[in-house]
Amino acid sequence: MPSSAEPPILAVGAHPDDIEFGCGGVIAQETRAGRAAHLVICSRGEAATFGRPEQRVAEAQRAAALLGASIEFLDLDGDSRLEIRTAHAMTLAGILRRVRPGAVLAPSVVENQHPDHWRLGRLVRDAARLARYGGLAELGESPPHHIGQLLFYALTQESEPTNVTPVLIDISAPETIEAWVAAMEAHDSQTSSRRYVELQLSRARLRGLGAGVEYATALFPADPLVFGSLADAGRGARAF
Amino acid sequence: MPSSAEPPILAVGAHPDDIEFGCGGVIAQETRAGRAAHLVICSRGEAATFGRPEQRVAEAQRAAALLGASIEFLDLDGDSRLEIRTAHAMTLAGILRRVRPGAVLAPSVVENQHPDHWRLGRLVRDAARLARYGGLAELGESPPHHIGQLLFYALTQESEPTNVTPVLIDISAPETIEAWVAAMEAHDSQTSSRRYVELQLSRARLRGLGAGVEYATALFPADPLVFGSLADAGRGARAF
Amino acid sequence: MPSSAEPPILAVGAHPDDIEFGCGGVIAQETRAGRAAHLVICSRGEAATFGRPEQRVAEAQRAAALLGASIEFLDLDGDSRLEIRTAHAMTLAGILRRVRPGAVLAPSVVENQHPDHWRLGRLVRDAARLARYGGLAELGESPPHHIGQLLFYALTQESEPTNVTPVLIDISAPETIEAWVAAMEAHDSQTSSRRYVELQLSRARLRGLGAGVEYATALFPADPLVFGSLADAGRGARAF
Amino acid sequence: MPSSAEPPILAVGAHPDDIEFGCGGVIAQETRAGRAAHLVICSRGEAATFGRPEQRVAEAQRAAALLGASIEFLDLDGDSRLEIRTAHAMTLAGILRRVRPGAVLAPSVVENQHPDHWRLGRLVRDAARLARYGGLAELGESPPHHIGQLLFYALTQESEPTNVTPVLIDISAPETIEAWVAAMEAHDSQTSSRRYVELQLSRARLRGLGAGVEYATALFPADPLVFGSLADAGRGARAF
Amino acid sequence: MPSSAEPPILAVGAHPDDIEFGCGGVIAQETRAGRAAHLVICSRGEAATFGRPEQRVAEAQRAAALLGASIEFLDLDGDSRLEIRTAHAMTLAGILRRVRPGAVLAPSVVENQHPDHWRLGRLVRDAARLARYGGLAELGESPPHHIGQLLFYALTQESEPTNVTPVLIDISAPETIEAWVAAMEAHDSQTSSRRYVELQLSRARLRGLGAGVEYATALFPADPLVFGSLADAGRGARAF
Amino acid sequence: MPSSAEPPILAVGAHPDDIEFGCGGVIAQETRAGRAAHLVICSRGEAATFGRPEQRVAEAQRAAALLGASIEFLDLDGDSRLEIRTAHAMTLAGILRRVRPGAVLAPSVVENQHPDHWRLGRLVRDAARLARYGGLAELGESPPHHIGQLLFYALTQESEPTNVTPVLIDISAPETIEAWVAAMEAHDSQTSSRRYVELQLSRARLRGLGAGVEYATALFPADPLVFGSLADAGRGARAF
Repeated sequence: MPSSAEPPILAVGAHPDDIEFGCGGVIAQETRAGRAAHLVICSRGEAATFGRPEQRVAEAQRAAALLGASIEFLDLDGDSRLEIRTAHAMTLAGILRRVRPGAVLAPSVVENQHPDHWRLGRLVRDAARLARYGGLAELGESPPHHIGQLLFYALTQESEPTNVTPVLIDISAPETIEAWVAAMEAHDSQTSSRRYVELQLSRARLRGLGAGVEYATALFPADPLVFGSLADAGRGARAF
Repeated sequence: MPSSAEPPILAVGAHPDDIEFGCGGVIAQETRAGRAAHLVICSRGEAATFGRPEQRVAEAQRAAALLGASIEFLDLDGDSRLEIRTAHAMTLAGILRRVRPGAVLAPSVVENQHPDHWRLGRLVRDAARLARYGGLAELGESPPHHIGQLLFYALTQESEPTNVTPVLIDISAPETIEAWVAAMEAHDSQTSSRRYVELQLSRARLRGLGAGVEYATALFPADPLVFGSLADAGRGARAF
Repeated sequence: MPSSAEPPILAVGAHPDDIEFGCGGVIAQETRAGRAAHLVICSRGEAATFGRPEQRVAEAQRAAALLGASIEFLDLDGDSRLEIRTAHAMTLAGILRRVRPGAVLAPSVVENQHPDHWRLGRLVRDAARLARYGGLAELGESPPHHIGQLLFYALTQESEPTNVTPVLIDISAPETIEAWVAAMEAHDSQTSSRRYVELQLSRARLRGLGAGVEYATALFPADPLVFGSLADAGRGARAF
Repeated sequence: MPSSAEPPILAVGAHPDDIEFGCGGVIAQETRAGRAAHLVICSRGEAATFGRPEQRVAEAQRAAALLGASIEFLDLDGDSRLEIRTAHAMTLAGILRRVRPGAVLAPSVVENQHPDHWRLGRLVRDAARLARYGGLAELGESPPHHIGQLLFYALTQESEPTNVTPVLIDISAPETIEAWVAAMEAHDSQTSSRRYVELQLSRARLRGLGAGVEYATALFPADPLVFGSLADAGRGARAF
Repeated sequence: MPSSAEPPILAVGAHPDDIEFGCGGVIAQETRAGRAAHLVICSRGEAATFGRPEQRVAEAQRAAALLGASIEFLDLDGDSRLEIRTAHAMTLAGILRRVRPGAVLAPSVVENQHPDHWRLGRLVRDAARLARYGGLAELGESPPHHIGQLLFYALTQESEPTNVTPVLIDISAPETIEAWVAAMEAHDSQTSSRRYVELQLSRARLRGLGAGVEYATALFPADPLVFGSLADAGRGARAF
Repeated sequence: MPSSAEPPILAVGAHPDDIEFGCGGVIAQETRAGRAAHLVICSRGEAATFGRPEQRVAEAQRAAALLGASIEFLDLDGDSRLEIRTAHAMTLAGILRRVRPGAVLAPSVVENQHPDHWRLGRLVRDAARLARYGGLAELGESPPHHIGQLLFYALTQESEPTNVTPVLIDISAPETIEAWVAAMEAHDSQTSSRRYVELQLSRARLRGLGAGVEYATALFPADPLVFGSLADAGRGARAF
């Protein structure tokens, strides 16, 4: 059971609505249990067909509030223009040292999707490592930090990695679903045209049916997960 | 933390020493915490170059006692002769219904290893499903049983599946290691010629170094694992 | 556009409701366009927790009628008891020679699902080859037959192969969806307990969103598909 | 059957002879049927051991004419110096908006080949997405464009992706083969030393034997292909 | 350089012409250098559309002679009827103990090809292990034998495993190619209808172009290969 | 058997101790047999928590001497800051042309490890290709060079590629192990905190047990390996 004693969750998104759509249910679930969550958004969605940057920032702020999370915006190379640069990984590593999260959520590194998504996932993966190293001058005086776990979220089935076994997080509580849907719907400028809320609820429903619960989100661990005992290592989803 | 309130663990092995070598540390760890464990051995090792069947059965019984587990022997097709037959899956499903385990441990289904290993892994996987179905006359009156989780163990790096993310179970407690080594060494007839104890300790040491503990065993879940919260979903191993 | 001039579709299922749930929308779509479809069911669902064999056969017959397809039942080893035997592949090859289909639909060969599903998929794959060979005495006088294409259907996301690129068949026409849902709902004995209709509609909706249509079914070709021109080779789904 | 009513094909190559060798047969096949094709070459082959840039440009122009295609040259980072930069993807997206193709052909993204090939494949994949977005200032006033399908071509068996099912395009017509061979041979400066024409004809012959025709080219779709009916979804290649 | 001091090669084929078409060039190459080779054919091709069993046996005997190899026929379940049975693996293990080969060549275990091919590959893989075990009564008095290496051959590109790195054997010597072609052509009853000789020469030519030689055969090792020094570990093929 | 007539080995490492830990046993083995080896280190370890750059350079020089190898340092982007740039590949290609090695050893290209490792592996892979091209002005007057083979080494099991079959090099000679351990231990500043020597010896021991020798190192070829005869193609490791 998460509690305020748990270190915070840090979720990183490439665009103002990625976190909500990809793993907003998990964020809502954890903050409801008293765990702090912080969102880092790496563009202002300025390349989108719909929605002006200032509108999208406001939507993301409203969504973060609905999820019970704090939020900050980062300007890297701009929406649809992200490149893999060490400087970006250092910037993200600096945030990891400042926020000192337990769990970190990042977009999956599967390549044939939006160019910003997988690049950001890789940058976060590198940042999680750089945050541990003691000799990086760019990171200043901040003490090294070891995160607890890095998990990737996916915005579509197509961006789910196929060679990693997901963990399924039960997000069935009605208040969780309600907060999640509200956070997705806060992105007014996007959802009308894209049916994204329906898409994500269907995905969570399918995973939930597999997990034997109402709704679940699949997260893809970057590294094997360590448990103190077999009894702690979850319960297997039941293929139909 | 496992306790006697947890449903028992069931481990299945093709030969008298497979369970000890592949996941004996986990068995020892769980029984030390008060959880019941039951071993099912599907041959008497009668094809081995060394060790007579009755000797090998006795060794396995001694090893099971050292691990704090009960044990039974099953004669399917005989050592090195196992075939994939529905009748065998039904036999194993019957045992699942009788023992009613939470976690089930079976040899990995990676194919280019001992022919009995991967076939048994597949039979157990099928059995876990058959145990849930209500209409199987072969299974008699025993009520259907849903196991908690099916995890595969591997006897070598070569038989670890490469498209499944393992969970790492911390088995560092000195008493756990001591019991595990004793159980492996109970197989006198095998270990002298094969350096198997050293092999398995090295594997656990390597996984432990990755997991940030002394020793760990990698287990490979057959299905995604379900957790009630992110805080319960383990801690990421730290690649060097 | 399919027409009655097209050779028939043959769909093979392990249990009375597998075809409807896995690819019923495609069957409905094709029969509505005048193409003949024939269903072959390889058990009577006698292992299921709910539904007696005769009830399940009747349900399947009603479902087939709703899909506009003919149907036959085959008794191989029985529900949940299917084994991979050459004799079964020969039986199926005999049906292929009799029906002489263009497209053949079979359950996917992904292994960690129901033991009957992947085994049947492999048997059909072998049967499609045996149907071509001229020298098989078991197949009697029936002339060899080359099917047009073998495509696998999946009952869940977990049984979709991950190393094969699916083709997406647009099944958005309201009459198609209506016939499909009716056919799934014809399996009264199963759906109440399993939420299967919702599961399958959600899957088709997700694939449809990816394909830019209302609903689509993913089918997984056993072999590369051959086209006379690039213009005939479909249109790419658009990852979000 | 392609016709002039079809939107044009756009093929992108890293070096002056890549398109001809990788998918020239398909280009010839489509233009013979009246479809427009445009080639974009992203270097002038200035790193090659043989052939001066101006000679290679002239060869490519002659080859394009033989294939019935128009051609343009793009100077990105130079031959053997291509880097993955957003600016390049934007440049390519601008071309996609200008040409407004249906099918786009790009080099495969398999990595252990020429460094320019897979990088260009990824740039084109990103460009196909950027071309759809409405808010990219770099792309000016040009209206967004959704391409019909992105398919990768491979210059060798080693650069064929192994987790994607190819589509096979029948290029058996003698006039197609003749135009293709002539276009490959137009690259005088390269073929003498590399036996490339023989290599490519052998590959097309092998694929053709699998497809049941004389010659075929394998193309690897970036996304699942969508069809209105099963009858439109090609014919399965017949493994021997 | 192979010599008569080398232990013999054993090649196993499901049908009378499989070895010749799949790895006949390698056999010819080795026997020309004085190494003994023995062929084991596991059916008489009695399912083929063309060629009577006695004719096919005679063809195989002529082909073996042209390759400089001895040959024997084994009747397991019959052509197109092979099943995976322990009894077959034991039969093959008995042959391994009798012939005591260094290298063993078997058809690849890739599944979507002829049902006999991959099943036989798996049986040989199991047999190579059983041949090492000391306690198998079925194998009688014959002393256990450890083969030197097990390598899979493929009859088509489609049956080449994609997750194994092949070794390429240079078979460019004109006498080798001549003997190989003659051995393939000895199967009069098959080649007229199937263009198999051309197919195999093209495959060897493509691999040869990759290997920097005239012709090469790709073989797929069942296990990692061990070398005493880096200098012995071959030379890398050069992707174009 | 390697000898001074063999072209030199070139090993490339991202940090001062990577080569020693990843493939130091192979280097020692080859230099003991009289083959020249040259190490290229692409940073001075300036990001490490422990050890100042000048100390780490001195440690690497001492380690190189213990391995019997020459060494040079290259400043690319700095420790933990490596980016994939054509300029770096050109720099490395220039070294390949100067040293003119047979075998080249580079860190594996598996991505979820230290960001410098896989990037360097890819740069070396590209460099091996660029070194062959005749028209690259950056490389000056140096004649093109074709390396003999490119093999990747791995620092952990997690960075071993899973879709490439390794070659195992026997490094069991006591003098080899002694030199290797001494070279690893020369990195005083690192090993105390990281148990790296134990980790690497355990890995070599496990591979050795699989290879039937005392110690072995797994190397992962970038391209298929070419052999003049089957007798030269090593001996298969024996899975337990």
